[in-house]
Amino acid sequence: MMIRTAVFLSLLSWASAYAEGDSEAITITRRDSRDTIAGAAGHFTGSVRVQRLFEVKAPGRTGGALVTFEPGARTAWHSHPLGQILIVTEGAGWIQPWDGPIQEIRQGDVVRIAPGQKHWHGAAPTSRMAHIALQEQLDGKVVEWMEKVSDEQYRKR
Amino acid sequence: MMIRTAVFLSLLSWASAYAEGDSEAITITRRDSRDTIAGAAGHFTGSVRVQRLFEVKAPGRTGGALVTFEPGARTAWHSHPLGQILIVTEGAGWIQPWDGPIQEIRQGDVVRIAPGQKHWHGAAPTSRMAHIALQEQLDGKVVEWMEKVSDEQYRKR
Repeated sequence: MMIRTAVFLSLLSWASAYAEGDSEAITITRRDSRDTIAGAAGHFTGSVRVQRLFEVKAPGRTGGALVTFEPGARTAWHSHPLGQILIVTEGAGWIQPWDGPIQEIRQGDVVRIAPGQKHWHGAAPTSRMAHIALQEQLDGKVVEWMEKVSDEQYRKR
Repeated sequence: MMIRTAVFLSLLSWASAYAEGDSEAITITRRDSRDTIAGAAGHFTGSVRVQRLFEVKAPGRTGGALVTFEPGARTAWHSHPLGQILIVTEGAGWIQPWDGPIQEIRQGDVVRIAPGQKHWHGAAPTSRMAHIALQEQLDGKVVEWMEKVSDEQYRKR
């Protein structure tokens, strides 16, 4: 009887440790389990899909998303309080800082945008572009959205 | 003469602002310009290649690398002070928390490892696996390396 109780308590303790490990220590989000939503009309021009890859979770402060732009689609002008990293995963697109030229970015390129830098990014007119976007949160904010990129601004390249 | 000087000074100021914008506002690292190095023998088992994608740059604290494991290759046991995110980009592999079971991860999966959690990850015995690894720095540290994963531990699945 004492042995049975010991085994039971031992199993209970293992189950509890295991449940904790399973739900907290390592969390796996499967490829097909994540939602993809349309980019908010107020912040994007054209057809844009946003798939959240991982949320900010304290004490960490980084969140990430996969963003896909159909040809001609782009973000509005915006900035990030702690900057942004883009890892281009598909196609070719454009990026432009305020007061700077449009530059081409292609699959495999990594882009760093400085904190507070007003900029936009998106697809080229004839090519889809997708990138992983990484931002660190500052005081609960990851982005400040501004005005849209006009067709005239977009066609300036 | 005054007009020429004004134009010259204005161009000088524009050039300086532009140079600053070009080198700091947006930095593009091209796909073929990044070095790939072998994973340090003390921290990995088997054939592992590490391509640094972006360095930590203050005020940001996140750095990222693309890590490719040939079949059977894996990290040593290790932990990260602020945790880690893995975005699996190729193949299938394994991940295991200390005191938990080995779990399979596949292309497209996103994995979150909790701060301070002792764990390892790597390829499956018959499949290559590559992932983007993202870590936030705390007091200048992103990782604490521990003992290697023995063949017995690796074959336990």
